[in-house]
Amino acid sequence: MAGELTLRINLDSTVPAYRQIVEGLRILLVNGKLAPESELPSVRRMALDLGVHFNTVAEAYRTLAEEGWLHLHHGRSARVVFRDVPDPTMDQMDEFGRRLRTLIAEMLAKGIPADKLTAEMHAAAEGLES
Amino acid sequence: MAGELTLRINLDSTVPAYRQIVEGLRILLVNGKLAPESELPSVRRMALDLGVHFNTVAEAYRTLAEEGWLHLHHGRSARVVFRDVPDPTMDQMDEFGRRLRTLIAEMLAKGIPADKLTAEMHAAAEGLES
Repeated sequence: MAGELTLRINLDSTVPAYRQIVEGLRILLVNGKLAPESELPSVRRMALDLGVHFNTVAEAYRTLAEEGWLHLHHGRSARVVFRDVPDPTMDQMDEFGRRLRTLIAEMLAKGIPADKLTAEMHAAAEGLES
Repeated sequence: MAGELTLRINLDSTVPAYRQIVEGLRILLVNGKLAPESELPSVRRMALDLGVHFNTVAEAYRTLAEEGWLHLHHGRSARVVFRDVPDPTMDQMDEFGRRLRTLIAEMLAKGIPADKLTAEMHAAAEGLES
């Protein structure tokens, strides 16, 4: 892992740093960019690199540990563990469609053209299919 | 409008009622199901129907008024107004792709199969194209 983790957060964003760290790392974990057995930077290192409080990183690591992605050691270091894919509930199966429609409505309201949204969705779908 | 508005919220959800109301109404507004000049139920009526506090509905109406969807009258009644589509900023143009990838990673982590996600995205894209 040393020095290879590319995680950027935007401290000016309205999205809390904690959530940006969790979501950014989760993308890397889902895509296998952070593979089982690899070590994440220590909480202190990551906090320094990102310019956030120690506790913000510690809380993000704890959240991902609860989701089964990380094994924490004394709350300071974190190792990626092999994670079984859970069986989603029926409600979770429907959640994506609901949240996607909500996101689309929000973007249309902001004036993003529909063809831009469809292009992004087709690209994302292709990425999943390959 | 009288009696015709279909807005359901889930009081057991972790998503705050305020956000569910804003997002639910925004979908109806974007889709034209709530057309300009139509009257929304009064804040009091909507609060009673949904089983939430008066202030929760009032706050949701205020948010949509700030976005340019509603004209409020004494903070009690709300009329849908004609809303110009804004010119999105470059950052907003990129926002959908970022948030879509974040949502997809979260869903994959919950065990939702990739083909379910692609099917939902293709369906949503078709809905926008028609």
